[in-house]
Amino acid sequence: MRIINIGIVGLGLIGGSLAKAFKKYTDCTVSGYDINPETIGRAVKEKTIDCELKIDECDMLVMAVYPADTVRFLQENGAQVKKGAIVCDCGGTKEYVCGEAEKIAAEHGFTFVGAHPMAGTEHSGFDFSDSELFKNASLIICSDKKQPEMEGIFGKIGFGCFKYTTAKEHDAVIAYTSQLAHVVSNAFVKSPAYRRHKGFSAGSLKDLTRVAWLNETMWTELFMENRENLVREIDNLIDNLKKYSDAVRSGDEAKLKSLLREGRTIKESVDGR
Amino acid sequence: MRIINIGIVGLGLIGGSLAKAFKKYTDCTVSGYDINPETIGRAVKEKTIDCELKIDECDMLVMAVYPADTVRFLQENGAQVKKGAIVCDCGGTKEYVCGEAEKIAAEHGFTFVGAHPMAGTEHSGFDFSDSELFKNASLIICSDKKQPEMEGIFGKIGFGCFKYTTAKEHDAVIAYTSQLAHVVSNAFVKSPAYRRHKGFSAGSLKDLTRVAWLNETMWTELFMENRENLVREIDNLIDNLKKYSDAVRSGDEAKLKSLLREGRTIKESVDGR
Repeated sequence: MRIINIGIVGLGLIGGSLAKAFKKYTDCTVSGYDINPETIGRAVKEKTIDCELKIDECDMLVMAVYPADTVRFLQENGAQVKKGAIVCDCGGTKEYVCGEAEKIAAEHGFTFVGAHPMAGTEHSGFDFSDSELFKNASLIICSDKKQPEMEGIFGKIGFGCFKYTTAKEHDAVIAYTSQLAHVVSNAFVKSPAYRRHKGFSAGSLKDLTRVAWLNETMWTELFMENRENLVREIDNLIDNLKKYSDAVRSGDEAKLKSLLREGRTIKESVDGR
Repeated sequence: MRIINIGIVGLGLIGGSLAKAFKKYTDCTVSGYDINPETIGRAVKEKTIDCELKIDECDMLVMAVYPADTVRFLQENGAQVKKGAIVCDCGGTKEYVCGEAEKIAAEHGFTFVGAHPMAGTEHSGFDFSDSELFKNASLIICSDKKQPEMEGIFGKIGFGCFKYTTAKEHDAVIAYTSQLAHVVSNAFVKSPAYRRHKGFSAGSLKDLTRVAWLNETMWTELFMENRENLVREIDNLIDNLKKYSDAVRSGDEAKLKSLLREGRTIKESVDGR
């Protein structure tokens, strides 16, 4: 199926950026919806979208809202989705949303594919949306079969890698690569020393605390949808940190050096030197 | 005193970068020493330094070696340092080195000033040295009086901020801003999920694990020289991480959201929005 009409639900950082990118890099007609009518008006005026969402005309519908809202929207509007259309989402957890949305899709004759663009910034909202956000990013696709239409259209807006996986594997790995990183960054700034850091810090602190600026409403939902995986990752990190703390406390230089060497070696073996 | 001759001991990432920057941005003569004679030869050949270290001619001597080696070098060579010269170091801990070096300085009639350039990369060694490393960096100066000669010469090579403090305060804050950041980054890669991160990660993981590439020999020494402060910071982070883990485990959404909001608010209040 050729994708001519794209609909985007949710014009925040991701949805707004997708709309801008589809308008800039494809010939598709882009319609959009946001819970805030002013955002729709602005997006139309700024030509970020061609018009307000025409759900029954969309060949592809991209859900760019929180996972629970994706499910709710499809429960309420699934009957209007064009037969044979592809509906994908952008949410940060997948087991819950894929399970629910695939049932709704089967009922109404469209295809649901869980997707997660590995792109973002520490900011959120339409104001920060950017047509170039997806340059060379990875798109995680939760599907056991290849999705050539999705690869085609998302490839045009900059995605450089399509990673196929299951919803279960997605949630297990993302609990670490994204969720744990946000927890650590947010916890890191809670030392009293953070308030004294100016003049005492360089790149490492800046990098480590960048995503401490987060949207707590969104992340609370994502964490709650992935509790078991996230708890496992936080506890595992705590166990590892204790080893460093114990080695330093007891003055065990050999142990400390070996812990540091082990981390450096893993980093090198995974990401090269 | 006008600084005409600068000596640099240790031509690694920091010493090599200082030599290149002093050669590029000042009219000073730069002499240098490294434990590896080949590095001295290369630095002379590449005009990174003018000649091998002439310690008795230096108006300013910059120690760019590990703290224990700074003390050892000054114990062995302090008598040769020019009377009235300024000797500073670049080490990552200060109480130990300042205490020892100030005694040696008093004995031989020169001034020792503990210094710590807030600059670096995840790489080490002369190969990565760069005359532009210090652009807009902060130089921490452990002194109770202003050091105009140091501000003048280090300002010429790019330093944009001079932060005066005590050795004690330096070590307390740096245990957090630099040391804890390295511990966390190094511990973070130890999740089994790290080996599966490709395609599942974006900026936040990359930023968080950048300094997992570290020189374990140097960091072991620095951590051991700052044990009490570092243990306090690691344990404090562990306590904070446990709060997130407990909230997620027990499904306490309100608690989790409040923890995340607290972190975001601290980040905003310290670094702006």
